[in-house]
Formats: sequence, C-alpha cells, structure tokens
Amino acid sequence: MARYKLIIEYDGSGFVGWQRQENGFAVQQALEEAIEAFSGETPRVFGAGRTDSGVHALAQVGHFDLLRETTTDTVRDAMNYHLRDVPAAILQARIVDEEFHSRFSATGRSYTYRITNRRAPLTIEKGRSWWVPVKLDAEAMHEAAQVLVGKHDFSSFRATVCQSDSPVKTLNKLEVERDGEHILIHAQARSFLHHQVRNFAGSLKKVGEGKWTAEDLKACLEARDRRAAGQTAPPDGLYLTGVSY
Amino acid sequence: MARYKLIIEYDGSGFVGWQRQENGFAVQQALEEAIEAFSGETPRVFGAGRTDSGVHALAQVGHFDLLRETTTDTVRDAMNYHLRDVPAAILQARIVDEEFHSRFSATGRSYTYRITNRRAPLTIEKGRSWWVPVKLDAEAMHEAAQVLVGKHDFSSFRATVCQSDSPVKTLNKLEVERDGEHILIHAQARSFLHHQVRNFAGSLKKVGEGKWTAEDLKACLEARDRRAAGQTAPPDGLYLTGVSY
Repeated sequence: MARYKLIIEYDGSGFVGWQRQENGFAVQQALEEAIEAFSGETPRVFGAGRTDSGVHALAQVGHFDLLRETTTDTVRDAMNYHLRDVPAAILQARIVDEEFHSRFSATGRSYTYRITNRRAPLTIEKGRSWWVPVKLDAEAMHEAAQVLVGKHDFSSFRATVCQSDSPVKTLNKLEVERDGEHILIHAQARSFLHHQVRNFAGSLKKVGEGKWTAEDLKACLEARDRRAAGQTAPPDGLYLTGVSY
Repeated sequence: MARYKLIIEYDGSGFVGWQRQENGFAVQQALEEAIEAFSGETPRVFGAGRTDSGVHALAQVGHFDLLRETTTDTVRDAMNYHLRDVPAAILQARIVDEEFHSRFSATGRSYTYRITNRRAPLTIEKGRSWWVPVKLDAEAMHEAAQVLVGKHDFSSFRATVCQSDSPVKTLNKLEVERDGEHILIHAQARSFLHHQVRNFAGSLKKVGEGKWTAEDLKACLEARDRRAAGQTAPPDGLYLTGVSY
C-alpha cells in the first residue's frame, strides 16, 4: 500500500464544492473517478478543506491510498489525463507516510479573497472575483482587519450550518492590499469556520465603503452574533491558496 | 449628433469574434444591440481591431454616433446594463470629435500573448491562456524575438485570409517575460497582419523549446513564406491590451 498526497487546482464554478453530494458533481468525485479510471481501485480522497460550491483552489491538498503502488509521475499524469474534460488538475503527487492525513495533519490554511473594484461589470473575470462597483478604501480595510487577528470567538462570522466544535479560532493573518482595480484579502489560520473568510470579506467591504469603522468591526466581533456582521460575500472571489503541514 | 469613443473589455470565448457574422454572436452585434436597447437608434459600431473568435480584449476601442446626444455616464451605464448577460463591458465612454475614427485614427495597437508553461493542464485559466507543458526558455525567446522588431515583410507570419494591402509592417516592440508559471509576449505596432501575434507566439514557442535558434527565426522571417514559420498559437492566450491615437 502507498499513500499519495496531491496538490490540486480547480475552478470552483464547475463543481458543487469539494465534498461528494447527491445534487451535482463534486471535486472529490471527479478525483475518485480519475483514480479508478487509471488504477481500477476505488479509494476515498480526503481533502484539507471542504470548499463550497463556486470556491476555487490554487493548491488544495488531498490524500488517498493505493493497494498497488505506482510512481507519482504516473499518478499525476494519469489523473490529469482522466480529468481532461473537468476543470480540476493535479499540480503535484507525492508518496507520504501513512500517518499523513490531508485534513488532520494540516497546521495551517491560506485563503485569498479577490474583489474587483470598478464601475464596469466583470467579463473575463466573471465567476473568479467579486464585483464591487462602489469605491473601496483598501488601507482602511487593512487597518480595521487587524482587530480580527488573534484568538477570538468568531461566532459573528460563522455560518449557521457550521459543524465546527467551537467558534473559537486563532486568526494568524488578515491582510488587505490593492493591486490596480483589484483588492486582495489574505487570510491565514490553522483552520476556519464555515464561511468565515467570505463573512470577513462582506464585513470588510462595509469598512471599505466607509459605512463601518474599525471600532464597528470590533463591536461586530464582540457581539458573537452572525446578525451583527456584514453579508456573506459570494464564493466567486474565494481561493484556497495553500495548506501547510 | 455626437460621436462616442468606447473602451471595451470582453472575454473572447463568448463570441465569434469582433465582427458581425452570420454564424454566431459577435462583440460588434452585442454592442449595437445594447445601444439600440437604450437609445432606440441603430448606429454601426466601428472597432480598432477585428479580433478573432476566442481572442480577448482588455481595452478594445470602438466608436459610434448618436443623433440624440446623451451623457457619457448614461452611455456607459446603460450599455453595461443591457450587456449584463454578455461577457463584454464598457470601461469608459467619451465624446470625441467627429473626425475621430477608432480604426483609421489609431496610431498603435498593443497585444499580449499569454502562455501557461507547466505540466498540469489549465483549470481556472482554461480558455484564457495557451497551455504549453514543455519547459520554455523565456530569455531565449526574448532575445530571438528582437530579430522581428523593425520594418519587415512579415509574409511568414501572415494568415492566408489576411486582407491587408501589404505584408510590410513596422513592429515597434516584441518582449517576452516570465512571470512565475506564465510567459507573456508583449507586441506593439501601428497595425498587425491577420494572425501575426499568434504566429509569432507559435514560432517563439519553438525557440523556447530549443528547437529553433534566433538565426532560425531570422531565416523564417526572410523566407516570406507562411510555411516557414511555426504553428498559429490558439486564440485563448491573445489579449488586445490597448490602442493609441
């Protein structure tokens, strides 16, 4: 037996999300079908982060086992061959220790939320960014974001369906930068609550518009109530950019 | 009467190209329908460059006339409203002198050709870049590209269907740079032959792979024969990035 660690890129708009579901095509299913197609085996693929429908990944991490060991080049190339009509690709395959678990061994996850801040609607970036036509102040967003960094009860930024045991998480980084007409929000933590980054983006937008101050964002955090925060930003702008171990 | 100059962005994969055709939906048609929808008038829209099917624009320029003058904000916002289900958007609208012609007044056109140079197939960038899995040497491509700069007979890089009066053009700039896993080819000239930039990209790929030297590229140029050059690179990677007047 061999355990394989995969680094996976996908366009989330082509899937119902990471996790296998009844109602559509999931990334997990696409990968499992590709593995079966080249190996004849039917292992489960475990992912580091269960991204929602429409959420993209530049470097999702997954793992699976094969009874008949094969080379990592074969795994990568054969999976990519069978994924050719699907917007998912294997960037890297490696053999790892059988103690490795893509989800439980992870020590950090990084996400970037991308906003296109301009008056004209999106064309080439449609489905790949959140269109916000109202002018946003990225510096004010960055400064306010710092009140969220650290160990907090993030109930205000947690989806009602969130399955996490606790709303307390430690946010290591939340940085906002402007890059031309784009605003990028970079978030890093050991783990996140369901919709946490999208809820950060929705509330930071209020700061960027001048509707909220950093104090308002702090009050929102301290309310520990989802109703206190801004909207959940659309999945289009969210990218899982890396997982550390 | 007022003449409007538009700066237009579009995702070329949603169109049969710039120019109105029998066999599908063209950018020109989309814009003309949007103008008619808000103004009731049916002017022709003239474009600076007749991009092919699949070719994108970050800043195409067009112009049209309205009998009943309206504000440029109205033109931009009303057109974007009517283009909401179409992957084209008006970035800017301005009133210009009636001597202005988007095509004939243009003094320069800039294109960027984008290659994704990695082993894994494309997912998020599918249709937006040319996937080249073989490792390319961007520096060698840049050096060789300089033999094409200047005034030359570019018959070797001209599509057979090209309607230009002469194959002689002056190429002002042809720069190749690597940006992570991407290779960008920037081309600037007063005007280009049909498929010229895509044919440059196809031949520069041969240099990047080490199959051609700069000397081979020079010989190809001097052959003045389309059969001497490399393949026509796919439209996916080509972006019209600007037009100068």
